[in-house]
Formats: sequence, structure tokens, C-alpha cells
Amino acid sequence: MTIRGEMLIGATALRGTDTVFHAIDPSTGTALEPGFGGGGSAEVERACALAWDAFDAFRDTGLEARAAFLEAIADGIMAIGDELIQRAMAETGLPRPRLEGERGRTVGQLRLFARTVREGSWLDARIDPAQPDRAPLPRADLRQRHIALGPVAVFGASNFPLAFSVAGGDTASALAAGCPVVVKAHSAHPGTSELIGRAVQAAVAACGLPEGVFSLLFGSGNRVGTALVADPRIKAVGFTGSRTGGVALMKVAAARPEPIPVYAEMSSINPVILLPAALAARAEALGTGFVGSLTMGAGQFCTNPGLVLAIDGPDLDRFLDAAATAVGGAAPATMLTPGIHAAFTGGVARLSGNAAVTTRARGPETSGPHQCRAGLFTTSADAFLDDPALHEEIFGAASLVIRCAGSQALRAVLERLEGQLTATLHMDGADAEAARALLPVLERKAGRILANGWPTGVEVCEAMVHGGPFPATSDSRTTSVGTLAIRRFLRPVCYQDLPDALLPEALRRGNPLGLWRRVDGVLGRDGTTSP
Amino acid sequence: MTIRGEMLIGATALRGTDTVFHAIDPSTGTALEPGFGGGGSAEVERACALAWDAFDAFRDTGLEARAAFLEAIADGIMAIGDELIQRAMAETGLPRPRLEGERGRTVGQLRLFARTVREGSWLDARIDPAQPDRAPLPRADLRQRHIALGPVAVFGASNFPLAFSVAGGDTASALAAGCPVVVKAHSAHPGTSELIGRAVQAAVAACGLPEGVFSLLFGSGNRVGTALVADPRIKAVGFTGSRTGGVALMKVAAARPEPIPVYAEMSSINPVILLPAALAARAEALGTGFVGSLTMGAGQFCTNPGLVLAIDGPDLDRFLDAAATAVGGAAPATMLTPGIHAAFTGGVARLSGNAAVTTRARGPETSGPHQCRAGLFTTSADAFLDDPALHEEIFGAASLVIRCAGSQALRAVLERLEGQLTATLHMDGADAEAARALLPVLERKAGRILANGWPTGVEVCEAMVHGGPFPATSDSRTTSVGTLAIRRFLRPVCYQDLPDALLPEALRRGNPLGLWRRVDGVLGRDGTTSP
Repeated sequence: MTIRGEMLIGATALRGTDTVFHAIDPSTGTALEPGFGGGGSAEVERACALAWDAFDAFRDTGLEARAAFLEAIADGIMAIGDELIQRAMAETGLPRPRLEGERGRTVGQLRLFARTVREGSWLDARIDPAQPDRAPLPRADLRQRHIALGPVAVFGASNFPLAFSVAGGDTASALAAGCPVVVKAHSAHPGTSELIGRAVQAAVAACGLPEGVFSLLFGSGNRVGTALVADPRIKAVGFTGSRTGGVALMKVAAARPEPIPVYAEMSSINPVILLPAALAARAEALGTGFVGSLTMGAGQFCTNPGLVLAIDGPDLDRFLDAAATAVGGAAPATMLTPGIHAAFTGGVARLSGNAAVTTRARGPETSGPHQCRAGLFTTSADAFLDDPALHEEIFGAASLVIRCAGSQALRAVLERLEGQLTATLHMDGADAEAARALLPVLERKAGRILANGWPTGVEVCEAMVHGGPFPATSDSRTTSVGTLAIRRFLRPVCYQDLPDALLPEALRRGNPLGLWRRVDGVLGRDGTTSP
Repeated sequence: MTIRGEMLIGATALRGTDTVFHAIDPSTGTALEPGFGGGGSAEVERACALAWDAFDAFRDTGLEARAAFLEAIADGIMAIGDELIQRAMAETGLPRPRLEGERGRTVGQLRLFARTVREGSWLDARIDPAQPDRAPLPRADLRQRHIALGPVAVFGASNFPLAFSVAGGDTASALAAGCPVVVKAHSAHPGTSELIGRAVQAAVAACGLPEGVFSLLFGSGNRVGTALVADPRIKAVGFTGSRTGGVALMKVAAARPEPIPVYAEMSSINPVILLPAALAARAEALGTGFVGSLTMGAGQFCTNPGLVLAIDGPDLDRFLDAAATAVGGAAPATMLTPGIHAAFTGGVARLSGNAAVTTRARGPETSGPHQCRAGLFTTSADAFLDDPALHEEIFGAASLVIRCAGSQALRAVLERLEGQLTATLHMDGADAEAARALLPVLERKAGRILANGWPTGVEVCEAMVHGGPFPATSDSRTTSVGTLAIRRFLRPVCYQDLPDALLPEALRRGNPLGLWRRVDGVLGRDGTTSP
């Protein structure tokens, strides 16, 4: 496949005529060929018009056809071969094993959604059969299923050029739900985006779907993205990125004549709580394990452990000693973009310049451009409670350890935190009561609660929640990873007294699709006789 | 029970010190005793503080305890006896049979949610057991359930003083989800609100729940409601009322430092489509049936049929003749409030003064204050498409019939409509293909699609959708009637590798609650052996 610097609008490929931009290899700072022409309002208009035209037909595809489409995308991504990995390495500075793993995650995610589509529970089919003889009033025949919300705008994320980008979780779940997708590519990896986009475009054609099911737009500023979210044919937004970016999209969406849902996954410092017995039993191992999670991928994960809480004392000092040693030995890694590197450097400078913060350890001096030099910092609970700036995410391998005077101070810090993607407890048997007392707080604050693990590493499965209260996400009622994510792009429709022939197959008498359905309040797979 | 004009804040009752207001008997225009003292910021603060304090304990109540609480509210409402009906009649002008029926609906709704809570599927329990031997990486044990979102602000609606008010659908579904509720009473029926509120307050005490589970606030303007939605401890809003009111609350919620979901059910004109064969077969019966739905309850239903579409011709004239006769004989009924009556009168005046609109029939002259004089109007598809004012809801018994030149014009009108709660098809066998062609449009526009019925009458059941795209509601992903409504007030939480003793009962090994759970992707009631 050749990267041409072209946007994909339905079945066509074309070069944008707005400002040309290049991907930058962050390990060298040099621009990569080719240049990409950014799109403008004409391309947004065209992509949205095609998506709208495709919507009714695409959402009406059968479960098997839609599942096969998702699998065709997965096959197409694998078929790109090593060019994809090489281009992604050049555009992101991420190492080969990570990108090969991420590719596996991306195609696995598409295949998981294919299975989810086939299984059909997401339709949430409900049937309340007519009761013509009910007194004082008869009951009509009422049947409900969920349908696709409409075309969805997806924004590629910088830190997962495959799994949270053009054919990542947002796109997979939106397509699974039956929503056409218009992707605004992240400008940091446009070549990777184009390669993946062409695989999706080819799958649309191979499956005989309307071309508007998928489009891919470029644009180096925020004009294309803003126009996309403001377009009346777009009915929902998926975004992973900065708090500033997510909040800006939320405002655009709320200001529309018809406001639409925005699923923005934004900002989280992912508190890790070291309970006393666990800390006493294995302070050094926890310190080493913590830094492994902190520095993995240069700390460029939404679930990076940016905050550690423990009761002050010699055990915490042992933890800090081990962690400091590990940070001191953590090889600097190239960050994703010059901008992310600059933001990290600025954030660390602000933290180390804060009078209430002690710099406990830094990683080795960097040896190349845009490398992340890890940082470990400490402060007191009082200082943390007094200074909102200390609550802000620093994207990269930096973490702040709060020395708490006691369990009340620790709880007070947790209560003051904003919403989080994750919260982690390290605990031994003797910590059970302390853990139990904290659980209600953690449930209110986070989408995922871990025991004796590290928050990095987000399994794609049925039970995952990659979400949480604001500002972790814009909408805590959902997740952006895992099969529940399909629900973001659905809405219920009820059919009253419709003749069987006009009902969607999922709701017909005799249950021709063999779905799980709730009939008169009872969940089951109602059989071949009319309910 | 005595109506004292008092707000209920947790376990206490107190008189607000802000402006005093009285309910008005709309059938006479006279003020009813006692006066009600409106609340201010101190009462909002107190109610929200109590709700927040109650949240962790209330959301942790067992399924049985929570169900019993909902049933205790239902019992308490019935125990008020005829005082409730009499006061509601005086405050709303609605007749006794309607209010007795609405009371039955209200307590039935509470009992249905009790059954829903006990059944437990709403927890959406999902379990992905650990795979310690998986290569290249082991999988952690991941378990997910839904928990309550937080305290909810509920706004009583004017047109259902029982079923959409203090202990109506929003309150029932929020309490079922485990959310404390702070109700802002509708100022048109404060006495009814106080009576119901005292029944809820008594049920909270009788069930041994924290007092903050329920509070009831008064206020004649919008200050109390705005302060409530802005309070950081409120995590969601339920509202049924005008588009202006709903949009105002959406803006307050979106402008908070932590934006929250608003479930506002607002504005709908509920198109009814008369397909040719049905119209030819029974134009007169359709005309009479239509006016029955239109004038029921003085047309004061969210699902009132405010728009009729048909292809122009002699059959439509027969329909109009029958409908005009029925409108001419429809006894004027008292409207809910002087304000609603004034808005209806103004809306009808604007419609009849529109040069493109023909007044086809009016109801008989009114004989008392604030009576609704029904109105039937006609216009052309072109005129309707040209004038957005004709798309606006007139709350009350007024409807506009669109004479369409053909099926294309009819479809064009449908495509131009805003989001609706309902869309209705009248069809015979020969209309099946025409109906099928329109279904995709109707699915995009409405939450409920009916065949050969009338949209008024909203069954409270599993399959109901009382919702729809904006401006029918602020959030088409949900419903405000039926058991699916519980989902509005929930969010998922994932537990990773938590010891069994710390897991919520719903997720423990052995499935002690006997719930439906999705284990490794397979839905079932996993048994007593560890999964």
C-alpha cells in the first residue's frame, strides 16, 4: 500500500487543499514524507452527507453482515503487513513490540465486537404482548429494541495510533451499533491513519455497504473537528485526548440546535493506595512494580499511576527508596510528539518548582530529542488539599506520592479528587477492613477499582470499564473499552401494535433470530411458538 | 393528613421564608389555602447535603430492602385516601376518574420498579474470570456491575400531578437505581405535592433509611430549580415540561464545573399519518377516534396528536368532516393552570391568524374560566415546510392537518420534523409497502411507533419508550416511562482482582443473589459453583 497523503471520503481518496502538514518522527524531530493536505468545510460537508445517506441502509444490515464487516476490517489491517508497524514506529516513536501488540489488540477488539453483534443482547429486545381483555383498559402489543443513533464523529488519539485511532474502540463500537463513522485523524500519525483508513474503505466496498459508512478527514488545527461536531448529521462524538480538547468538543456539542452526546475520555491521575499491611510486607516490591507501571510506554497511558497515597512512616520510605532507585534506572523513552514532550517537561518543571513538593528522583539524563525523563515527587496531604494544581494530570512518567498523616488524611485526599478512570488498592488480609471502608469512596470516584495490580493495561472484554466521573470522561454512564461501549451509540425504539411483517426481525413473533428477549418481564430465548 | 404549606427536608418539615404562593383552582380562578412558603438557597443547600450524606448508605441497600421501600411509598400514597384526589382535583381541574386512574398508575409504577429492582438484571453483572495462564499476558479477574449515579433532582410536571410529579416515574426510577431524590414541586399543585411528599418521607422513616433519601422543595420562580441543578452534589436531573424550561436546565447542567446528564421530556407534536387504504376504508371512524385522542384531558398530554398527515383528496375531506363534527361537539374542559390556558389561547390565535392556515373547526364556546376550546386546522405541505412556526407544539387540544399532494410531499414533511415522542401510522393491508417505506424515517424521528392506534395513553411496562430525539427529549438514549428508565441513573464500575469478600454481593463467586450474569460472554444464571 502507498501512503499518498490523501483523505478518504466515502469511496474516494482526495488530497485536501488546506494547509499541508507532515508527520514528525519524534525520535529525530524530522518531518516524514508525504505531506498531508488538510480538509476544509467542503470535505466535512461531503463526508457527513455520505454518512447520512448511508445511515438507514447500514443500520438495517443483519447481525451476520455487520459482524462480517468488522472481521473484514480486522483482516484488512493484518493484510497491510509490516508497512503499518514501520510507519507507526516512525510516527510515534513507540517500539515494535508495543505496536505489534497494539495491532493485535485492535483486530481483537474488532473481532470481539463482531461476536457481540452476532450475539444480539445489545438490542435489548423487550416484548409486552397485547392483553386485549385487561380491565379497565386493554394493553396494546408493545415491543422494544435499540437502534443506531446516527453518524458518529471519532477523533483519533495520539497515544494509541491503532487501538484508539482510526479503527480503534470508538470506531469499532460505533460501527457495531450500526452507525456510520467519520474519523478526524490525529495529526501526529496521519500515515498510519491513512493505511488503516484504506483498509476500512476496502472492507466497506468488499462487503457491499454504502460508501458513506466510513470517511477519514485530516486537518492540522481544530477547524475540521469543530465543523464535524457541529454538523447536524453527526449524532454522537467519540474522543480520547486532553481535557482541554474534550471540554471544547463538549461545548460545541451542547451549543448545537440539537445537542448530542460526547464521549470524551480525558484526564485521570489514577490514585494508587498502599494500605499499611501490604506496604509493611512488600514495600520494595511495590516500589519496583509501581515504577514499571509508571514508566511503561514513557507513561503515556490514560491509566498511568500519577498519584500514590500512603500513611507516612518507615514503610513508605522503603517504598520510596525502591521506587527512586527504579526511576533512576529507567531508560528515557521517546515521547509521542514534540508537543506532548513539551507539555510533560513543563508539567514536571511546575511540580518540582512547587515549594510544597520534594523531587524524590528523576530518570537518567536524556540522550535524544523528545525523550521522557521520569520523575518521582512527594508532598503532604495538606499541601495536596490546598493546591488544585497538584491534582492536574501530567501526561507522561511523573507521579506524586502523598505522605498522609493517617487514614483520615488519606480518605480526605481521596474525597477531594476529581473523577478517575481507575483507583488501585494494594492490600493484604489485615488491610481488608481499611479497604472496605474506602470502597464507597472509590466507587464514587472511579470507573475501575483494582486490588494488588497496576492500572496500566486495559483488558478488552465484557466487564471492562474504561470510564469514570468527570473529568476522567464526559459521561460516566459508559465505557470506551469493552463490549458495553456499543451502548453509547444506541437508542431505544418502541413498536406498538405493528403487524409482524413490519416489525424488525429482532422483535417478530417466533423469535426468528433466536435472541435473548425479555417477554412480559421474563428474560429468556423465547422459542418458535408465538409469545 | 393536613396540608401545612411546608417543605420537607429530610425528616423535617418547615415553612419556606421566601415569597408565599397559593395554588389556584383553575375552574374558578380562586386561590386555595394554605399559602406555601418558597425555599431559598439555604433549603437547597440543606436538602443536597442530606442527599449526599444518604447516598452511600442508600445505594448500598439490598435489592429486597429497596424494593420494599418503593412498595411502602405506594402503600403510603393509597393510605392518604380521598383527600389526595380532592386536593388534586381542586389544584388541576382534572376530573375524579382521571385522577383515580392516575393514582393507580403511580402506585403501579412504584410496584413495577420494585419488581425490577428485585429481578436485578439492571445491575448488568458481567464477569470475565482470570486467565492466569493466558499467553502472552495473563488476564486479571474482571467483574462489572452498575451503581447509582448520585443524588437526582426531579422536577414535578404540571400535567400529571401524580404520575410525573413528586413520586412519579422520575422519582421511582431514581430511587430504584439507588439515588436519593430532591424534588422541586410544580407550583401548580403544591398541596398534592406535599401530601405525596409526606407519604414518601414516612416511607423513608418506616424503612429505616437515611433521611436524606428524599426532600421536597417549593419555589414559585426558577431560582430554586436552578440552584438545585447547579449544586455539585446533584448528579442527574429528571424533568418533564416545556421546551424553554428543559433547555434552560440543560444549559445550567452543561455549564457546571462537572456537567451532568439532564433527562428532560419537552416538546412533541406526535405526527399521525393516515395512509390511503386506511383512509378510504374508514375516514369517518378515524376522524372521530382522532378527536377523542385530541381532546382527552383537554389535550394536555405530551403525546397529544398535534399533527396529521394525509394525501389530499375526498377521503381526507371525509376524515376532516367527521373530525370537525367531533370537535364541534367536544365539551370544553378546564385546563391545568391559567398560564397553560393563556399559552394555548395564544398559540391557537397565532395558528388561526396564519394566512396559510385554514380553521376547519373550533369547539363550542367556553362556559367557564381557563377552558380549552378545541381547534382543528389545515394547511398545505408547502406551507408547513416553509414556516417553522407551524412545527411548534401547542399544548392543548389543537391539531394541524397537512394536506399532502402525494407520498413524496408527505415524506418530505416527515423528514423535516424535529424529534418526536411518537409517530402513528393508520394503515390497512394495502398500505403495507407505503408503511414499510416510511418506517426508517419514523425510527429516526420518534421513540415510539404505533399502528392503528392513538398516541395518548402510555403504558408503564418493560417495552415502553417515552422518549425520542431532541426536542422531544434532551437525551434520546433513554425513556422516562417504563422499566428501562432505571438505566438513566446508573453507571458501570469494574472490579479487578478484588477478594471475594470485598466484592459487591452481585458479583461474588457462587452468585449468591441468583442474578442473571454474563460470565465470559455468556448470559445465564451461573450456579452455586465458582465460575
